[in-house]
Amino acid sequence: MSAIITLTTDFGLSDAYVASMKGVILGINHEVKLVDVCHSVRPQDILQGAFVLNTVFEYFPEGTIHLVVIDPGVGTERKAIILRTPAAYFVAPDNGVLSYIIEHFSGKSAEVSTGRKKVKLKPPLEAYTITNPRFWRPAVSSTFHGRDIFAPVVAWLSLGYQPAQLGDRITSVNSLPLLHPQRRPDGSLVGHIIHIDIFGNLVTNIRAEDLPEEKESVTINAGGHSIQGLSLTYAEREGLLALIGSSGYLEVSLNRGSAAHFLNADTGSEVFVN
Amino acid sequence: MSAIITLTTDFGLSDAYVASMKGVILGINHEVKLVDVCHSVRPQDILQGAFVLNTVFEYFPEGTIHLVVIDPGVGTERKAIILRTPAAYFVAPDNGVLSYIIEHFSGKSAEVSTGRKKVKLKPPLEAYTITNPRFWRPAVSSTFHGRDIFAPVVAWLSLGYQPAQLGDRITSVNSLPLLHPQRRPDGSLVGHIIHIDIFGNLVTNIRAEDLPEEKESVTINAGGHSIQGLSLTYAEREGLLALIGSSGYLEVSLNRGSAAHFLNADTGSEVFVN
Amino acid sequence: MSAIITLTTDFGLSDAYVASMKGVILGINHEVKLVDVCHSVRPQDILQGAFVLNTVFEYFPEGTIHLVVIDPGVGTERKAIILRTPAAYFVAPDNGVLSYIIEHFSGKSAEVSTGRKKVKLKPPLEAYTITNPRFWRPAVSSTFHGRDIFAPVVAWLSLGYQPAQLGDRITSVNSLPLLHPQRRPDGSLVGHIIHIDIFGNLVTNIRAEDLPEEKESVTINAGGHSIQGLSLTYAEREGLLALIGSSGYLEVSLNRGSAAHFLNADTGSEVFVN
Repeated sequence: MSAIITLTTDFGLSDAYVASMKGVILGINHEVKLVDVCHSVRPQDILQGAFVLNTVFEYFPEGTIHLVVIDPGVGTERKAIILRTPAAYFVAPDNGVLSYIIEHFSGKSAEVSTGRKKVKLKPPLEAYTITNPRFWRPAVSSTFHGRDIFAPVVAWLSLGYQPAQLGDRITSVNSLPLLHPQRRPDGSLVGHIIHIDIFGNLVTNIRAEDLPEEKESVTINAGGHSIQGLSLTYAEREGLLALIGSSGYLEVSLNRGSAAHFLNADTGSEVFVN
Repeated sequence: MSAIITLTTDFGLSDAYVASMKGVILGINHEVKLVDVCHSVRPQDILQGAFVLNTVFEYFPEGTIHLVVIDPGVGTERKAIILRTPAAYFVAPDNGVLSYIIEHFSGKSAEVSTGRKKVKLKPPLEAYTITNPRFWRPAVSSTFHGRDIFAPVVAWLSLGYQPAQLGDRITSVNSLPLLHPQRRPDGSLVGHIIHIDIFGNLVTNIRAEDLPEEKESVTINAGGHSIQGLSLTYAEREGLLALIGSSGYLEVSLNRGSAAHFLNADTGSEVFVN
Repeated sequence: MSAIITLTTDFGLSDAYVASMKGVILGINHEVKLVDVCHSVRPQDILQGAFVLNTVFEYFPEGTIHLVVIDPGVGTERKAIILRTPAAYFVAPDNGVLSYIIEHFSGKSAEVSTGRKKVKLKPPLEAYTITNPRFWRPAVSSTFHGRDIFAPVVAWLSLGYQPAQLGDRITSVNSLPLLHPQRRPDGSLVGHIIHIDIFGNLVTNIRAEDLPEEKESVTINAGGHSIQGLSLTYAEREGLLALIGSSGYLEVSLNRGSAAHFLNADTGSEVFVN
C-alpha cells in the first residue's frame, strides 16, 4: 500500500515552493499520496505551525509521514530531524516545530521556561538527525532545504528506508516553551488564546479535562466579557459562547460571527475560568 | 477503479480542518482520489457554496461523491443527508446547500418563497438521512461532523456501501429559495448578481435560454451602466461587456479589469435586460 | 506508470474553475496524478505565471505535462500550443507564458524588444497548435478553454496520444520580452526585481553566473540601501542581506522580516551590482 506524506509549511500558495517539493518527492516515489495540511502558517511562525500539526496528525493512518518545513534558520547550524512515534514519522528542522508532538507523547512538562530547551526523548520516541547526503539532491541550495534535503528524505522514508540509514540517532531534540494554563490560589484557571481559526473562534490552551465536571457553573472571562456555562454547539445560543472544540480545547465563539473581531482578541491574550 | 471524492467547505486553508477530513477518509479507503473543489466559501454562506457546487459537478465522472460541509448548524437538530442523483452522490448537511443540485434535477420551482422550505423529491432523486453511527468515528465532536461523521460516511460510500446501510430513506429535503429572473409586463427581464468570480466578473442568474435569439439587439443594464449586445469573449471589446459565461449564465465583465470594482457591485444587485 | 499533470493558473481558489478542469481530466484519464503548482498568479499576469513555471519545472520527473492557463485572450484568435522539450510537455495559450521555458532551452536572446515577438524554435524544441476538436469537449465555451480544450488535451497527452494527433506542427511561437541585466561601461550591472515571494524576498533577474567570483567584494544597491557582500542564508546577518536564492537568482532579503515592505519595493524596480 502506497505511503502517505503530508506537508505543512509557511510557503504560501503564490509561489511554486510547495510544488517543487512535490516534484522532487514524486521523482523518487511515484506512488506516494501527497496531502497538504496547511501552507499558510504565518511566515516563520514556528509555534503556529506546531499547533496546526498537533490538531491533525491523529487523524491520519498509522505510518503516515508528516513533513513540516517552517524553517527560518535554513542553511545555518540548526539540525534537521526525523522523529519516530508509534503513530507516524515527523520530519522537520530541529527548531521546536515538533514541540506539541513531543509533549503529546511525553506528557506535560512541569517546568516553565522562556527560551528553547533540549528535551530528552523517552521511548517510544526516537529521533535521528538527517546527515547522510547520499539521500539528498546532488546540489543543495543553502536557502531551500525543503526541496533539496527534506523532500528527498521523506520520499526515501516512504519507500521503506530506515531513519538510521538517513542519519544518526540522537537522544534529545529542541523544544519551545508551550504555554500551559495556571491554577491560581482561589482555584480559578488562567489560560491563553493559542490559535484563531478562520471562523474567528478563539482556541485556548485550556483542555476539557482542566475544567470542573459541572459545565453549567463555569464562568469564562475573555476580552472583558463574561460567559456563563459551556455550550455544545456553535449555534446553541445567541452572541458569545464557550465550548470544547473539535481538538479538545476550550474555545470562545460568536454565533454567526467572529469572536476574534467582536472581542478584538489576538493570540497570547489571557482567558480566565472560574 | 478507485472512487473520486470532491470536497467543498468554508474551512479555509489556514487551519488543518480539511486535512483532518482527508486523513480520516484515507484511513478508511486508502485508494480514493481526493479533489478539492473550494474551501474558501465565505464562512457559513450556504448559498455561495450551493452555487459553486452547481458550477462544477457536471464535469466530474459519473459516480463521483461530492462532500459539502458548510454547516453553521453543526451539532444541532439539523439532519445530514446523502442525495443520490443519476450523476453522483452528494453528502451534506440538510440546510439547503444542495438547493441548486435539486433544482437542476427537478426543474425550476414556480413558487417563490422567502424562507427555507421542504422539497419533495421525485425520481431519479433519492435521499437518505445519515443515522447509522456504526459508520462514524467512535467519538463524535459536536462541532466538527465534517471529520467525525461526513468524512467516514463518504469513505464508506466510496468503498461501495449503500446509502440504505448508512441511514434511512427520506422523501423530502430542505431547500433555500433561489432567486430567479422575473419577466416584467413590458417584456424586460430583471435578474440578480449571484456570484462574483476572482476576475471580478459579475455572474447573474439569467441563463442563455432566457435571452432573445437576436443577441445584438439586447441591452444589459448593471450598476447604472448600459451595455449594447452580447460579446463572445472577454477580450472582444474595450470596457464593459456582457457575455454568456462558461456555466451558461449571463455575465457582466470588464476587459482587462474587474467589473465588480468598476461598478462597485455586489451579489444581490439587480441586472436588467431589455 | 501513471503520468503527472501540473496545473498553473490565475483562477484562484475561491471559484470551482480549477476543480472543473480536474474533473474533465479525471474523466478521461482516471489514473493521472494532478499537482497544483500555483493558482494565485495575479489575474492575467502572463509574465508572473511564466516566472513561477520556470522556477518549478526542473524538479518534476521527465515526461511531466505542465498545463498553464493564464489566458486573457481566451476565445480570440490567439492559438493554443503544445511545446515539447526534452524534459516535459508544456500546454498553454500561445501568449508568451512559456517565454522563460523557451529561453531556458534556446539560450538567452541578444535582442531587446518591447512587444511580443515570434521566436523560431530550434531542436530539441517542438511545438504544435491545438487544432483537432476530436479531442475537446463537445461543447466549447468561448470563455473557458481551460476546461473545454486544455483539460481534455492534457488528459489525452497523458494517455500517450502524440502532439501530432492533437494538432499541427508549427515552427515558431510567441514570446514576451524578458528583462535581462545590462552591463554598464564601468562594469557595474543593472538588473530588475522580477518576483516578490511570500516572505517579501526580492528576486532579481541577475543570476549567480552574472556576478564576480569574489562574493565578499560585491556591493548591491536596492531601494536606496546598500548591501556589502553576499550571504549564504537568510539568517546569517541582521537586517538587509543579499544572497543567491534557490532558483539561482540574486535575492535581496530582510532577516526575520519582509524586504519588500522595508524597501517599499515592487517588481520592475532596478537593482545595481558593483
